[in-house]
Amino acid sequence: MHEVHREITRWIEPLGVTVHVDAVGNLRGIYPASETPASRLLIGSHLDTVPNAGAFDGILGVVLAAACLEALNGEKLPYAIEVIGFSEEEGVRFGVPFIGSRALVGRVDNDLLNIKDSRGISLRQAIQDFGLDPSQMDDAALHPDACAYLEFHIEQGPVLDKLGAPLAAVEAIAGQSKWELTFQGRANHAGTTPMNLRFDAVAAAAEWISGVEKTANGTPGLVATVGSIEAKPGATNVIAVEARLSLDVRHRDDAVRERGVDRLIHQATEISDRRHLQVRSTQHLNQPAVVMDPSLAAQVEQAIRKASCPPHRMVSGAGHDAMIIAEKIPAAMIFLRTPGGISHDPAESVIVEDVAKAIECGVHLLHQLASDTTFHPRTCRA
Amino acid sequence: MHEVHREITRWIEPLGVTVHVDAVGNLRGIYPASETPASRLLIGSHLDTVPNAGAFDGILGVVLAAACLEALNGEKLPYAIEVIGFSEEEGVRFGVPFIGSRALVGRVDNDLLNIKDSRGISLRQAIQDFGLDPSQMDDAALHPDACAYLEFHIEQGPVLDKLGAPLAAVEAIAGQSKWELTFQGRANHAGTTPMNLRFDAVAAAAEWISGVEKTANGTPGLVATVGSIEAKPGATNVIAVEARLSLDVRHRDDAVRERGVDRLIHQATEISDRRHLQVRSTQHLNQPAVVMDPSLAAQVEQAIRKASCPPHRMVSGAGHDAMIIAEKIPAAMIFLRTPGGISHDPAESVIVEDVAKAIECGVHLLHQLASDTTFHPRTCRA
Repeated sequence: MHEVHREITRWIEPLGVTVHVDAVGNLRGIYPASETPASRLLIGSHLDTVPNAGAFDGILGVVLAAACLEALNGEKLPYAIEVIGFSEEEGVRFGVPFIGSRALVGRVDNDLLNIKDSRGISLRQAIQDFGLDPSQMDDAALHPDACAYLEFHIEQGPVLDKLGAPLAAVEAIAGQSKWELTFQGRANHAGTTPMNLRFDAVAAAAEWISGVEKTANGTPGLVATVGSIEAKPGATNVIAVEARLSLDVRHRDDAVRERGVDRLIHQATEISDRRHLQVRSTQHLNQPAVVMDPSLAAQVEQAIRKASCPPHRMVSGAGHDAMIIAEKIPAAMIFLRTPGGISHDPAESVIVEDVAKAIECGVHLLHQLASDTTFHPRTCRA
Repeated sequence: MHEVHREITRWIEPLGVTVHVDAVGNLRGIYPASETPASRLLIGSHLDTVPNAGAFDGILGVVLAAACLEALNGEKLPYAIEVIGFSEEEGVRFGVPFIGSRALVGRVDNDLLNIKDSRGISLRQAIQDFGLDPSQMDDAALHPDACAYLEFHIEQGPVLDKLGAPLAAVEAIAGQSKWELTFQGRANHAGTTPMNLRFDAVAAAAEWISGVEKTANGTPGLVATVGSIEAKPGATNVIAVEARLSLDVRHRDDAVRERGVDRLIHQATEISDRRHLQVRSTQHLNQPAVVMDPSLAAQVEQAIRKASCPPHRMVSGAGHDAMIIAEKIPAAMIFLRTPGGISHDPAESVIVEDVAKAIECGVHLLHQLASDTTFHPRTCRA
């Protein structure tokens, strides 16, 4: 992380950017406005990624922020631009995502600083070991002049690739439900137990999984996934006493998502009752959808059109730092096509022409915002 | 095992039984006939069991052999009786079942003696460590006068309990197919991949499991079980790239079983093709059904009736030593009701009155065979 901070600093300092690393380990660089006082537009994404990752998830958004500044070719705008490279977005080390962006909205508190990684090292200690002072966390908060946040990110899904579109304006980040379900039957001998005397947890789970798929297929925009299933005892010749499954449900509309989940949990109970099994279901996450700022998203759409790309709008099924920052200031995202939808994998890629279009779109957007009076210095905080 | 050998020896020696332990570790005791030369009826079961087992699987059959001799009260029959307590029926230590009974039919060869347990100890070495001489294996073979084999065993299934019947004559031991299937899809993000762009291995597997259940429900006597399922990567937020399943199919009629398996493998391919996935299927076992000797089974049925029990006939879904011995001499089995069908579990039980009925049935059977001229000394080997 120190190395990537040095590398990006080497790129943006010559453009007139003043760089520092805040108390949670975010890289932050200020490109001044043409006048003072001035509002401040944040452009960024995260610098961390997952094990066995690709080269673009997160960091491409920081590189694109730098590229947009470079494309301004020294031009100053009526607002300052803050380039941000967030730390710890993925949550790999501490099991908690968005630690970097949480610091900007004042959500890195003592409880969070005390969580520990798998080796027992606390977040507080990790910050100190990195050479930073966790007691200075308040200084990492959004600057009072911050007026909006913009994030370029690879789509990490197959939609734009399928459409043949390089870019999309993100309208919302889907809400997400996570559940764990356990069907409990009876372990019996696979050879000696006739079909009509079984209480088979795997067969019940299978029936339910097909129902999950059918419900999602029948609800526009809903995605529902059983990614994990475990049978106990898991032996070839024993009818499973237990099947434990994960359920992940997402939709842009919280009411649709919650109705979908209710229906699936109800189906599990219905299947379980009919088969004389038990089912336990536990909710692990109920995260509301986050709407991107409509006027900023409209500006993004217009900039995409100016870059001669079809102006696609879409919902992000994955979480992003933008949804944290959106708690405090208007936020918008621009997605780049991800070939094959492949991400979190060494085969993750982008098309070089799409990246060029993203820069073109970014510069158009910066100029649009410069001439948008509702966006001018400090007016945005009215 | 030494202790149980000593214990059973203490019970049967006073009845006039001459006991020895053969080269594979089977306890064998000869109760002489009223005349010589004489045929020899074998009555036995196995003395080993599984970890975390109950108290009756296997050993009850040996105890019942002893109890039948005791109930003869000194009476000699026109044939000798050999009580057998087989070793290593379950296959826990070496992964190969029926080692004890295999020795009686000449199937403990060098290859088998060379297999090793999880600690690297060969079967040959284990036999030596037990104090026996594996080079004497030929002496463990069936005696030339052996004319039939009888095995009492708990049903280990729920059928007799459901029927309210204490005993059953076993007509056949079901044939068994074991397969492993792997559905291969694509790992995609559970949030960013719309339902119509998924290649979900778990969803395909679930559809297939429901088909397995439906096919077995629609085929009288067929049992089909998916006891094990594993999803990769098995993460809540990743659509599974792979689902690996076990399939266990059993039926008394090999043709019905094989047609059932063909249909299930075909269904897997059809599901996989329709969903644009791949499926691999590998057969791990194709074990034919073993028919019990019809005239001996008829004698068992008559003896059950004489013991004032309903003369139920059934197929064993589990394998037993009887199916090994049946390769060489007529074999039959008598099942005892297993409350709840619970076996291989500390809660395994029998009803004491059922055990009394089994002894009564056994003594009737011994007398029936004594007066059956086709069964008399040496005639059985014609």
